[in-house]
Amino acid sequence: MLCVFDVNETLLDLAALDEFFADVTGDPAARREWFDLMIHNALVITATGGYRPFGQIAAACLPTVAVTRGRTATPEQQRELGQRLRRLPAHPEAAGAVTRLRDAGFAVVALTNSVLDVAEDQLRNAGLSPLFDAVYSADQVGRLKPAPEPYRFVVEARQASPSDAVLIAAHDWDVAGATAAGLSAAFVAREGRVPLSSTDAPAVVGVDLDDITASLIG
Amino acid sequence: MLCVFDVNETLLDLAALDEFFADVTGDPAARREWFDLMIHNALVITATGGYRPFGQIAAACLPTVAVTRGRTATPEQQRELGQRLRRLPAHPEAAGAVTRLRDAGFAVVALTNSVLDVAEDQLRNAGLSPLFDAVYSADQVGRLKPAPEPYRFVVEARQASPSDAVLIAAHDWDVAGATAAGLSAAFVAREGRVPLSSTDAPAVVGVDLDDITASLIG
Repeated sequence: MLCVFDVNETLLDLAALDEFFADVTGDPAARREWFDLMIHNALVITATGGYRPFGQIAAACLPTVAVTRGRTATPEQQRELGQRLRRLPAHPEAAGAVTRLRDAGFAVVALTNSVLDVAEDQLRNAGLSPLFDAVYSADQVGRLKPAPEPYRFVVEARQASPSDAVLIAAHDWDVAGATAAGLSAAFVAREGRVPLSSTDAPAVVGVDLDDITASLIG
Repeated sequence: MLCVFDVNETLLDLAALDEFFADVTGDPAARREWFDLMIHNALVITATGGYRPFGQIAAACLPTVAVTRGRTATPEQQRELGQRLRRLPAHPEAAGAVTRLRDAGFAVVALTNSVLDVAEDQLRNAGLSPLFDAVYSADQVGRLKPAPEPYRFVVEARQASPSDAVLIAAHDWDVAGATAAGLSAAFVAREGRVPLSSTDAPAVVGVDLDDITASLIG
Protein backbone atom coordinates (compact mmCIF):
# COMPACT_ATOMS: atom_id res chain seq x y z
CA MET A 1 0.00 0.00 0.00
CA LEU A 2 1.04 3.58 -0.73
CA CYS A 3 0.78 5.89 2.30
CA VAL A 4 0.38 9.56 1.27
CA PHE A 5 0.97 11.93 4.17
CA ASP A 6 -0.29 15.49 4.33
CA VAL A 7 2.37 17.73 5.92
CA ASN A 8 1.10 20.85 7.76
CA GLU A 9 -0.72 19.92 11.01
CA THR A 10 -0.62 16.20 10.08
CA LEU A 11 3.16 15.70 10.45
CA LEU A 12 4.22 19.17 11.64
CA ASP A 13 3.01 21.06 14.71
CA LEU A 14 1.55 24.48 13.90
CA ALA A 15 1.32 25.29 17.62
CA ALA A 16 4.95 26.39 17.25
CA LEU A 17 3.50 29.52 15.58
CA ASP A 18 1.44 30.56 18.62
CA GLU A 19 4.18 32.80 19.96
CA PHE A 20 4.56 34.54 16.59
CA PHE A 21 0.79 35.13 16.42
CA ALA A 22 0.80 36.45 19.99
CA ASP A 23 3.50 38.97 18.96
CA VAL A 24 1.71 40.08 15.78
CA THR A 25 -1.92 40.09 16.94
CA GLY A 26 -1.76 40.05 20.75
CA ASP A 27 -3.63 36.72 20.73
CA PRO A 28 -2.02 33.26 20.41
CA ALA A 29 -5.46 31.82 19.50
CA ALA A 30 -5.24 33.87 16.27
CA ARG A 31 -3.03 31.09 14.89
CA ARG A 32 -5.90 28.64 14.52
CA GLU A 33 -8.19 31.35 13.14
CA TRP A 34 -5.47 32.25 10.60
CA PHE A 35 -5.12 28.61 9.54
CA ASP A 36 -8.89 28.16 9.15
CA LEU A 37 -9.09 31.40 7.14
CA MET A 38 -6.21 30.26 4.93
CA ILE A 39 -8.03 26.96 4.26
CA HIS A 40 -11.25 28.85 3.54
CA ASN A 41 -9.41 31.02 1.00
CA ALA A 42 -7.76 27.97 -0.57
CA LEU A 43 -11.12 26.17 -0.85
CA VAL A 44 -12.79 29.18 -2.47
CA ILE A 45 -9.96 29.63 -4.98
CA THR A 46 -10.05 25.92 -5.82
CA ALA A 47 -13.86 25.76 -6.08
CA THR A 48 -13.88 28.73 -8.48
CA GLY A 49 -11.44 26.82 -10.72
CA GLY A 50 -8.42 28.98 -9.85
CA TYR A 51 -4.99 28.44 -8.36
CA ARG A 52 -2.69 30.48 -6.15
CA PRO A 53 0.53 29.39 -4.40
CA PHE A 54 -0.31 28.35 -0.84
CA GLY A 55 2.32 30.64 0.67
CA GLN A 56 0.72 33.68 -0.96
CA ILE A 57 -2.61 32.72 0.62
CA ALA A 58 -0.92 32.19 3.99
CA ALA A 59 0.65 35.64 3.84
CA ALA A 60 -2.55 37.35 2.64
CA CYS A 61 -4.52 36.00 5.61
CA LEU A 62 -2.15 37.35 8.27
CA PRO A 63 -3.25 41.02 8.04
CA THR A 64 -6.91 39.94 8.20
CA VAL A 65 -6.58 38.22 11.58
CA ALA A 66 -4.44 41.13 12.83
CA VAL A 67 -6.98 43.79 11.80
CA THR A 68 -9.83 42.05 13.64
CA ARG A 69 -7.72 42.50 16.79
CA GLY A 70 -6.93 46.14 16.12
CA ARG A 71 -3.38 45.39 14.93
CA THR A 72 -1.52 45.78 11.65
CA ALA A 73 0.64 43.02 10.15
CA THR A 74 3.63 44.35 8.22
CA PRO A 75 5.16 42.90 5.02
CA GLU A 76 8.17 41.93 7.16
CA GLN A 77 5.89 39.92 9.44
CA GLN A 78 4.32 38.23 6.41
CA ARG A 79 7.80 37.20 5.25
CA GLU A 80 8.70 36.07 8.76
CA LEU A 81 5.61 33.84 8.81
CA GLY A 82 6.81 32.23 5.59
CA GLN A 83 10.19 31.52 7.16
CA ARG A 84 8.65 30.11 10.32
CA LEU A 85 6.45 27.77 8.27
CA ARG A 86 9.67 26.23 6.92
CA ARG A 87 10.90 25.46 10.45
CA LEU A 88 7.92 23.80 12.15
CA PRO A 89 8.76 20.89 14.47
CA ALA A 90 7.36 17.42 13.85
CA HIS A 91 4.58 16.16 16.09
CA PRO A 92 6.25 13.96 18.74
CA GLU A 93 4.87 10.68 17.36
CA ALA A 94 5.42 11.47 13.64
CA ALA A 95 8.86 9.93 13.03
CA GLY A 96 8.04 6.73 14.89
CA ALA A 97 4.72 6.26 13.11
CA VAL A 98 6.19 6.78 9.63
CA THR A 99 9.07 4.42 10.50
CA ARG A 100 6.67 1.66 11.54
CA LEU A 101 4.78 1.99 8.23
CA ARG A 102 8.07 1.70 6.31
CA ASP A 103 9.12 -1.29 8.40
CA ALA A 104 5.75 -2.90 7.61
CA GLY A 105 6.61 -2.64 3.91
CA PHE A 106 4.47 0.36 2.92
CA ALA A 107 5.69 3.00 0.49
CA VAL A 108 5.58 6.41 2.21
CA VAL A 109 5.35 9.77 0.41
CA ALA A 110 4.26 13.31 1.33
CA LEU A 111 1.73 15.46 -0.57
CA THR A 112 1.16 19.07 0.50
CA ASN A 113 -0.38 22.31 -0.72
CA SER A 114 2.92 24.07 0.12
CA VAL A 115 5.12 24.63 -2.93
CA LEU A 116 7.81 21.97 -3.39
CA ASP A 117 10.73 24.08 -2.21
CA VAL A 118 8.92 24.90 1.05
CA ALA A 119 7.75 21.31 1.54
CA GLU A 120 11.27 19.93 1.14
CA ASP A 121 12.60 22.52 3.60
CA GLN A 122 9.84 21.67 6.06
CA LEU A 123 10.53 17.93 6.11
CA ARG A 124 14.30 18.46 6.23
CA ASN A 125 14.11 20.93 9.12
CA ALA A 126 11.76 18.61 11.03
CA GLY A 127 14.17 15.69 10.57
CA LEU A 128 11.64 13.68 8.57
CA SER A 129 13.16 13.77 5.07
CA PRO A 130 15.06 10.45 5.33
CA LEU A 131 11.79 8.65 6.12
CA PHE A 132 9.99 9.59 2.88
CA ASP A 133 10.39 7.98 -0.54
CA ALA A 134 9.33 11.25 -2.22
CA VAL A 135 7.71 14.64 -1.62
CA TYR A 136 5.02 16.07 -3.91
CA SER A 137 3.33 19.45 -4.06
CA ALA A 138 -0.10 20.47 -5.36
CA ASP A 139 1.81 23.29 -7.06
CA GLN A 140 3.23 20.73 -9.51
CA VAL A 141 -0.24 20.37 -11.05
CA GLY A 142 -1.45 23.95 -10.43
CA ARG A 143 -4.48 22.86 -8.37
CA LEU A 144 -4.72 22.86 -4.58
CA LYS A 145 -6.05 19.92 -2.58
CA PRO A 146 -8.91 18.92 -2.27
CA ALA A 147 -9.22 19.15 -6.10
CA PRO A 148 -8.69 15.66 -7.56
CA GLU A 149 -5.59 16.52 -9.62
CA PRO A 150 -2.94 16.47 -6.83
CA TYR A 151 -4.06 13.05 -5.51
CA ARG A 152 -4.15 11.56 -9.02
CA PHE A 153 -0.72 13.05 -9.74
CA VAL A 154 0.88 11.29 -6.78
CA VAL A 155 -0.78 7.96 -7.47
CA GLU A 156 0.35 8.09 -11.12
CA ALA A 157 3.86 9.23 -10.18
CA ARG A 158 4.18 6.19 -7.89
CA GLN A 159 2.63 3.91 -10.52
CA ALA A 160 0.02 2.86 -7.97
CA SER A 161 -3.73 2.51 -8.34
CA PRO A 162 -5.92 4.89 -6.29
CA SER A 163 -7.55 1.97 -4.49
CA ASP A 164 -4.11 0.87 -3.27
CA ALA A 165 -3.32 4.28 -1.75
CA VAL A 166 -4.36 5.91 1.53
CA LEU A 167 -4.15 9.62 2.31
CA ILE A 168 -3.34 10.38 5.97
CA ALA A 169 -4.39 13.89 6.99
CA ALA A 170 -5.58 15.97 9.94
CA HIS A 171 -8.07 17.91 7.74
CA ASP A 172 -11.63 17.00 6.79
CA TRP A 173 -11.28 18.62 3.34
CA ASP A 174 -8.13 16.66 2.51
CA VAL A 175 -9.73 13.36 3.48
CA ALA A 176 -12.84 14.22 1.43
CA GLY A 177 -10.71 15.17 -1.59
CA ALA A 178 -8.70 11.94 -1.49
CA THR A 179 -11.88 9.87 -1.15
CA ALA A 180 -13.49 11.70 -4.09
CA ALA A 181 -10.35 10.92 -6.14
CA GLY A 182 -10.71 7.20 -5.38
CA LEU A 183 -8.11 6.79 -2.62
CA SER A 184 -8.95 5.62 0.86
CA ALA A 185 -8.31 8.01 3.73
CA ALA A 186 -7.29 8.13 7.37
CA PHE A 187 -8.32 11.14 9.46
CA VAL A 188 -6.14 12.33 12.35
CA ALA A 189 -8.53 14.07 14.75
CA ARG A 190 -6.07 16.67 16.09
CA GLU A 191 -7.31 19.57 18.26
CA GLY A 192 -10.79 18.04 18.48
CA ARG A 193 -11.41 18.31 14.74
CA VAL A 194 -14.04 16.01 13.19
CA PRO A 195 -14.57 14.58 9.69
CA LEU A 196 -16.77 16.43 7.19
CA SER A 197 -20.47 16.30 8.14
CA SER A 198 -21.96 15.77 4.70
CA THR A 199 -19.79 13.04 3.15
CA ASP A 200 -19.05 9.41 3.99
CA ALA A 201 -16.85 8.83 7.04
CA PRO A 202 -13.16 8.11 6.30
CA ALA A 203 -12.06 4.47 6.42
CA VAL A 204 -9.82 5.12 9.45
CA VAL A 205 -10.08 7.72 12.24
CA GLY A 206 -7.50 8.09 15.01
CA VAL A 207 -6.47 10.58 17.68
CA ASP A 208 -2.84 10.76 16.47
CA LEU A 209 -0.46 9.10 13.99
CA ASP A 210 0.29 6.20 16.36
CA ASP A 211 -3.41 5.42 16.43
CA ILE A 212 -3.68 5.65 12.62
CA THR A 213 -0.58 3.52 12.09
CA ALA A 214 -1.87 0.77 14.37
CA SER A 215 -5.09 0.61 12.33
CA LEU A 216 -3.27 0.55 8.97
CA ILE A 217 -0.77 -2.13 9.96
CA GLY A 218 -3.51 -4.10 11.71
CA MET B 1 -27.21 46.06 -16.00
CA LEU B 2 -28.28 42.66 -14.65
CA CYS B 3 -28.38 42.51 -10.84
CA VAL B 4 -28.00 38.92 -9.55
CA PHE B 5 -28.95 38.61 -5.88
CA ASP B 6 -27.82 35.83 -3.59
CA VAL B 7 -30.70 34.82 -1.27
CA ASN B 8 -29.70 33.35 2.14
CA GLU B 9 -28.20 36.02 4.42
CA THR B 10 -28.09 38.53 1.54
CA LEU B 11 -31.87 39.05 1.18
CA LEU B 12 -33.15 36.85 4.04
CA ASP B 13 -32.31 37.08 7.74
CA LEU B 14 -30.89 33.86 9.17
CA ALA B 15 -31.06 35.33 12.69
CA ALA B 16 -34.66 34.11 12.65
CA LEU B 17 -33.16 30.63 13.22
CA ASP B 18 -31.44 31.58 16.49
CA GLU B 19 -34.37 30.41 18.61
CA PHE B 20 -34.46 27.05 16.81
CA PHE B 21 -30.71 26.59 17.38
CA ALA B 22 -31.13 27.53 21.04
CA ASP B 23 -33.78 24.79 21.38
CA VAL B 24 -31.72 22.13 19.60
CA THR B 25 -28.22 22.90 20.90
CA GLY B 26 -28.76 25.10 23.97
CA ASP B 27 -26.80 27.87 22.24
CA PRO B 28 -28.26 30.48 19.83
CA ALA B 29 -24.71 31.25 18.61
CA ALA B 30 -24.66 27.72 17.14
CA ARG B 31 -26.62 29.15 14.19
CA ARG B 32 -23.66 31.04 12.79
CA GLU B 33 -21.33 28.08 13.44
CA TRP B 34 -23.80 25.82 11.61
CA PHE B 35 -23.94 28.20 8.65
CA ASP B 36 -20.14 28.46 8.44
CA LEU B 37 -19.83 24.65 8.67
CA MET B 38 -22.45 24.26 5.92
CA ILE B 39 -20.49 26.62 3.68
CA HIS B 40 -17.25 24.77 4.49
CA ASN B 41 -18.91 21.49 3.48
CA ALA B 42 -20.28 23.04 0.28
CA LEU B 43 -16.86 24.45 -0.63
CA VAL B 44 -15.13 21.11 -0.06
CA ILE B 45 -17.71 19.21 -2.13
CA THR B 46 -17.43 21.79 -4.92
CA ALA B 47 -13.60 21.89 -4.85
CA THR B 48 -13.45 18.08 -5.11
CA GLY B 49 -15.58 18.29 -8.27
CA GLY B 50 -18.74 16.93 -6.63
CA TYR B 51 -22.28 18.11 -6.05
CA ARG B 52 -24.86 17.61 -3.33
CA PRO B 53 -28.20 19.41 -2.84
CA PHE B 54 -27.69 22.32 -0.45
CA GLY B 55 -30.54 21.24 1.82
CA GLN B 56 -28.87 17.86 2.39
CA ILE B 57 -25.69 19.65 3.45
CA ALA B 58 -27.68 21.96 5.75
CA ALA B 59 -29.35 18.99 7.43
CA ALA B 60 -26.09 17.00 7.75
CA CYS B 61 -24.38 19.87 9.59
CA LEU B 62 -27.04 20.21 12.30
CA PRO B 63 -26.03 17.09 14.32
CA THR B 64 -22.39 18.18 14.20
CA VAL B 65 -23.00 21.51 15.94
CA ALA B 66 -25.35 19.77 18.41
CA VAL B 67 -22.79 17.07 19.32
CA THR B 68 -20.09 19.62 20.12
CA ARG B 69 -22.52 20.99 22.73
CA GLY B 70 -23.36 17.60 24.19
CA ARG B 71 -26.73 17.44 22.44
CA THR B 72 -28.28 15.18 19.81
CA ALA B 73 -30.19 16.53 16.80
CA THR B 74 -33.02 14.26 15.67
CA PRO B 75 -34.17 13.55 12.08
CA GLU B 76 -37.34 15.48 12.97
CA GLN B 77 -35.23 18.51 13.91
CA GLN B 78 -33.32 18.21 10.64
CA ARG B 79 -36.64 18.29 8.74
CA GLU B 80 -37.85 21.19 10.89
CA LEU B 81 -34.70 23.14 9.95
CA GLY B 82 -35.53 22.59 6.28
CA GLN B 83 -39.03 23.95 6.84
CA ARG B 84 -37.76 26.97 8.76
CA LEU B 85 -35.30 27.79 5.98
CA ARG B 86 -38.33 28.19 3.68
CA ARG B 87 -39.87 30.79 5.99
CA LEU B 88 -37.02 33.22 6.71
CA PRO B 89 -37.99 36.89 6.86
CA ALA B 90 -36.43 39.43 4.50
CA HIS B 91 -33.86 41.83 5.89
CA PRO B 92 -35.71 45.10 6.62
CA GLU B 93 -34.10 47.03 3.76
CA ALA B 94 -34.29 44.26 1.13
CA ALA B 95 -37.60 45.04 -0.59
CA GLY B 96 -36.87 48.77 -0.81
CA ALA B 97 -33.38 48.23 -2.20
CA VAL B 98 -34.52 45.79 -4.89
CA THR B 99 -37.39 48.11 -5.82
CA ARG B 100 -35.02 51.06 -6.31
CA LEU B 101 -32.83 48.97 -8.62
CA ARG B 102 -35.90 48.00 -10.68
CA ASP B 103 -37.06 51.61 -10.79
CA ALA B 104 -33.59 52.60 -12.02
CA GLY B 105 -34.07 50.24 -14.98
CA PHE B 106 -31.94 47.29 -13.85
CA ALA B 107 -33.00 43.69 -14.45
CA VAL B 108 -33.17 41.89 -11.09
CA VAL B 109 -32.86 38.10 -10.62
CA ALA B 110 -31.97 35.76 -7.73
CA LEU B 111 -29.34 32.99 -7.79
CA THR B 112 -28.98 30.66 -4.81
CA ASN B 113 -27.44 27.35 -3.81
CA SER B 114 -30.85 26.30 -2.45
CA VAL B 115 -32.77 24.02 -4.82
CA LEU B 116 -35.32 25.86 -6.99
CA ASP B 117 -38.40 24.70 -5.11
CA VAL B 118 -36.95 25.94 -1.81
CA ALA B 119 -35.73 29.21 -3.34
CA GLU B 120 -39.16 30.00 -4.80
CA ASP B 121 -40.80 29.24 -1.45
CA GLN B 122 -38.26 31.42 0.34
CA LEU B 123 -38.83 34.49 -1.81
CA ARG B 124 -42.63 34.02 -1.80
CA ASN B 125 -42.80 33.65 1.99
CA ALA B 126 -40.57 36.71 2.45
CA GLY B 127 -42.84 38.75 0.17
CA LEU B 128 -40.04 39.36 -2.35
CA SER B 129 -41.22 37.22 -5.30
CA PRO B 130 -43.01 40.04 -7.16
CA LEU B 131 -39.80 42.08 -7.25
CA PHE B 132 -37.72 39.51 -9.15
CA ASP B 133 -37.74 38.86 -12.91
CA ALA B 134 -36.61 35.26 -12.32
CA VAL B 135 -35.16 32.88 -9.72
CA TYR B 136 -32.30 30.49 -10.51
CA SER B 137 -30.70 27.67 -8.52
CA ALA B 138 -27.20 26.21 -8.66
CA ASP B 139 -29.03 22.87 -8.62
CA GLN B 140 -30.12 23.52 -12.22
CA VAL B 141 -26.49 23.04 -13.34
CA GLY B 142 -25.48 20.49 -10.66
CA ARG B 143 -22.64 22.66 -9.31
CA LEU B 144 -22.76 24.84 -6.19
CA LYS B 145 -21.55 28.43 -6.12
CA PRO B 146 -18.70 29.52 -6.14
CA ALA B 147 -18.03 27.16 -9.10
CA PRO B 148 -18.28 29.15 -12.35
CA GLU B 149 -21.20 27.18 -13.84
CA PRO B 150 -24.10 28.73 -11.86
CA TYR B 151 -23.01 32.32 -12.62
CA ARG B 152 -22.53 31.55 -16.33
CA PHE B 153 -25.91 29.80 -16.41
CA VAL B 154 -27.75 32.89 -15.15
CA VAL B 155 -25.93 35.28 -17.46
CA GLU B 156 -26.70 33.05 -20.47
CA ALA B 157 -30.30 32.55 -19.40
CA ARG B 158 -30.77 36.34 -19.30
CA GLN B 159 -28.88 36.75 -22.60
CA ALA B 160 -26.50 39.15 -20.86
CA SER B 161 -22.72 39.35 -20.99
CA PRO B 162 -20.83 38.62 -17.74
CA SER B 163 -19.30 42.11 -17.78
CA ASP B 164 -22.82 43.60 -17.77
CA ALA B 165 -23.84 41.65 -14.65
CA VAL B 166 -23.20 42.22 -10.94
CA LEU B 167 -23.60 39.61 -8.19
CA ILE B 168 -24.77 41.05 -4.88
CA ALA B 169 -23.96 38.79 -1.92
CA ALA B 170 -23.13 38.79 1.79
CA HIS B 171 -20.50 36.04 1.34
CA ASP B 172 -16.84 36.35 0.41
CA TRP B 173 -16.90 33.05 -1.51
CA ASP B 174 -19.88 34.07 -3.62
CA VAL B 175 -18.27 37.38 -4.55
CA ALA B 176 -15.01 35.61 -5.42
CA GLY B 177 -16.86 33.05 -7.56
CA ALA B 178 -18.75 35.69 -9.53
CA THR B 179 -15.56 37.66 -10.11
CA ALA B 180 -13.73 34.53 -11.29
CA ALA B 181 -16.62 33.90 -13.73
CA GLY B 182 -16.23 37.41 -15.19
CA LEU B 183 -19.08 39.23 -13.44
CA SER B 184 -18.55 42.21 -11.19
CA ALA B 185 -19.54 41.88 -7.56
CA ALA B 186 -20.93 43.82 -4.62
CA PHE B 187 -20.21 42.58 -1.09
CA VAL B 188 -22.69 43.18 1.73
CA ALA B 189 -20.62 43.21 4.92
CA ARG B 190 -23.29 41.75 7.26
CA GLU B 191 -22.36 40.65 10.80
CA GLY B 192 -18.86 42.13 10.47
CA ARG B 193 -17.87 39.80 7.64
CA VAL B 194 -15.04 40.88 5.31
CA PRO B 195 -14.12 40.08 1.68
CA LEU B 196 -11.75 37.21 0.91
CA SER B 197 -8.16 37.97 1.99
CA SER B 198 -6.32 36.49 -0.97
CA THR B 199 -8.25 37.76 -4.00
CA ASP B 200 -8.94 41.20 -5.47
CA ALA B 201 -11.39 43.37 -3.53
CA PRO B 202 -14.98 43.40 -4.89
CA ALA B 203 -15.98 46.43 -7.00
CA VAL B 204 -18.52 47.56 -4.39
CA VAL B 205 -18.62 47.03 -0.61
CA GLY B 206 -21.48 48.22 1.61
CA VAL B 207 -22.85 47.68 5.10
CA ASP B 208 -26.34 46.71 3.85
CA LEU B 209 -28.41 46.58 0.66
CA ASP B 210 -29.30 50.28 0.85
CA ASP B 211 -25.60 51.08 0.84
CA ILE B 212 -24.95 48.73 -2.11
CA THR B 213 -27.92 50.07 -4.07
CA ALA B 214 -26.79 53.67 -3.65
CA SER B 215 -23.38 52.73 -5.09
CA LEU B 216 -24.84 50.81 -8.03
CA ILE B 217 -27.36 53.49 -9.03
CA GLY B 218 -24.73 56.18 -8.44
